[in-house]
Amino acid sequence: MLDIQFEKIALIGIGLIGSSLARVIKKKNLATHVSIATRRQETLKRACELQLGDFYTTDNAKAVEGADLVILSVPVGASAQVAKSLHDHLKPGAIVSDVGSTKALVIAEMIPLLPKTVHFIPGHPIAGTEYSGPDAGFADLFMNRWCILTPLAESDAGAVAQLTAFWEACGARVEKMDAKHHDLVLAIVSHLPHLIAYNTVGTASDLEKVTNSEVISYSASGFRDFTRLASSDPVMWRDICLHNKDAILEMLSRFSKGLSSLERAIRLGDGETLFDFFTRTRAVRRNIIDAGQEIDASDFGRQSVSKKST
Amino acid sequence: MLDIQFEKIALIGIGLIGSSLARVIKKKNLATHVSIATRRQETLKRACELQLGDFYTTDNAKAVEGADLVILSVPVGASAQVAKSLHDHLKPGAIVSDVGSTKALVIAEMIPLLPKTVHFIPGHPIAGTEYSGPDAGFADLFMNRWCILTPLAESDAGAVAQLTAFWEACGARVEKMDAKHHDLVLAIVSHLPHLIAYNTVGTASDLEKVTNSEVISYSASGFRDFTRLASSDPVMWRDICLHNKDAILEMLSRFSKGLSSLERAIRLGDGETLFDFFTRTRAVRRNIIDAGQEIDASDFGRQSVSKKST
Repeated sequence: MLDIQFEKIALIGIGLIGSSLARVIKKKNLATHVSIATRRQETLKRACELQLGDFYTTDNAKAVEGADLVILSVPVGASAQVAKSLHDHLKPGAIVSDVGSTKALVIAEMIPLLPKTVHFIPGHPIAGTEYSGPDAGFADLFMNRWCILTPLAESDAGAVAQLTAFWEACGARVEKMDAKHHDLVLAIVSHLPHLIAYNTVGTASDLEKVTNSEVISYSASGFRDFTRLASSDPVMWRDICLHNKDAILEMLSRFSKGLSSLERAIRLGDGETLFDFFTRTRAVRRNIIDAGQEIDASDFGRQSVSKKST
Repeated sequence: MLDIQFEKIALIGIGLIGSSLARVIKKKNLATHVSIATRRQETLKRACELQLGDFYTTDNAKAVEGADLVILSVPVGASAQVAKSLHDHLKPGAIVSDVGSTKALVIAEMIPLLPKTVHFIPGHPIAGTEYSGPDAGFADLFMNRWCILTPLAESDAGAVAQLTAFWEACGARVEKMDAKHHDLVLAIVSHLPHLIAYNTVGTASDLEKVTNSEVISYSASGFRDFTRLASSDPVMWRDICLHNKDAILEMLSRFSKGLSSLERAIRLGDGETLFDFFTRTRAVRRNIIDAGQEIDASDFGRQSVSKKST
C-alpha cells in the first residue's frame, strides 16, 4: 500500500468541495500541514474560524510554497488565472490537480501556464450538494462517490497512483477517463439535468396564470425535486456552460427531440406510446440504488428525515 | 368542531394513496367500518394481509353499500368506469370523492354517471412517493401536505365541510379551487416536472456514446434526482397526459421556449445572461422550505438517512 500521507497539501478555494477535502484530510490524517488560499478575505476568515487548515492566505503563491499536493477547487472559469498565479511558486515534483466539472478546455487552458517540473493530473469528484461555501462541506462528501481522473498522455504513473490513493483515502472510488469523454458523460449526467432544472423553475416563475405562492404550496407533487439542482452556485454553472459548450448543446438537442415526440403523443392522445415511454425509464433508478449511488428509501428518505426531526 | 367519524368509509382502489388513507383512517379512528374494493384479486389479497380494512371485495358495488363516504383512488382514466359501477348502489346522501391528479375532465366524465342523490365533491391530495401499490402507503403521507377540493357549483356546503374536516384529520391542509385552475396549477408543479424527468432519463438511455453503466455510476451529479419522478406509475402518468392535455401542452410549449433561450445563450457564450438565469431561481427552494413543503436539509437529507443506516 502506498503512503498517502503528504507533508504539505495546499487547497486553493475553500467552498463546498475544498472545505470537504480539508475536513476529510484532517479526519483521516492525510497531511502534516494543510494550507488554504481563497480569493475573498471573508471566506478565508470563515475557513479559519472553522479551523479547516494550518495556514490561511489570500495569496495563492504563498499557499503552495513547498506543497507536495496542490488541489484547485475553484469555478472552472477561474482555473487558468489560478494556474498563472502558481507558476513560479510550485515545488518541483509537486502534484497539481483540480476538481473542475469540465475537463478538456480547463486542461488546454492550464497546461501552458504550469511549469513542466510538476505533475498536472486533472480530476473531478462526482459529489456535491446544492449548498456552497466553507460551511457547506463535510468529511463524508466523497464517501462511495466516484472521482474521475483524466491524466494526460505524459502523466507520471507514480504520481497518478499517489493521487488515486489519496482520493481512495477520502472515501471515493477512482476511475480514469479521457478528458473529452468525461465532458460528454458529465453533460448527460450532470449538466443537462441542472439546465433542465433551472429552466423548469424559470418556467414556473414566469407564469401569470399560476401564482408563485401556488407553485410553492403545491410543489411536493414533483416541482420541489427540481429546485434543489436549480439552487446550485450560479458562477459554477455559468462557467460549466461556457466550458463544455459542444457536449451540452448536443445533449440539449437530443433532449428537445425527445420532448417533441412526447408532445406529439400527448397532442394525438396516443396512450400506447405514452405508456411505453413511461415504462422503460422505471428500471434505471433501481440500478442506481443497486450501484450504491442512491439511498434505498422512498422519496429520497425525506420521510425518515422529517420523522427524525419531529 | 365537526364529528369526523364516519359510520362506513369505502375505499375504491388500494394503491399508494388508497392504502395511505386506509392506514390514517385506522390510526386516527376516522370510521367504524372500512370496506376496500380493488380490481385485481392479488392486490386485494395483499390489502387483506396488511389488515388495511374490515371488508374486502373485487366488487365495487358491494364495497359502497351503506357507505357514508366513498373515495376513489384509481388512475384518472378509470374514474368513469368506476363511477358507472357504483351508480345503483350508493346510499342517498353519501359523499363521493376522488384523489385524481386531474380534475376538469374527470368531473365532466363522472357527473352524468353518478346519481343526483349523492354529494360528489372531487379532491386531490398533493402527496405521493415514487412507489405504488398497497405496501407503499403510510399513515403520515398527507401530513402537512395540501389537499385541493374542487367542489361543484351545486355542492352542499355541509358535505364540503365534512370532507374538509376528514382531510384535516388525515393531517392535510385543505384548499378549495376551481377545477380548471387546479389543472393548470398541477400542470406546472407536477405534470411538467414528471414529463421532463421521464424525458431526461429517456435521453440518457438512448445515448450510444455514453454507456448506461456510466450514467448509473456518475448519476449522483444531478441525474439521479430525476430518476425518482421517472419511476412513477406509468398507467397513472399515461392517464394524466390524456386527461390534462391542454394545460400540459401549454406548459411544454413555455418550457421549450425557455430552453431555446438558454441554448442560444450557451451557443453565443453569453455568460451574463447565463449568470442571471441561474441566479433568479435560487430563492424558490428557500421559500418552499419556509412553507413547510420541503425538509430543511441539504441533498434532500440523503446524508442523514445514509448515515443512520450505516
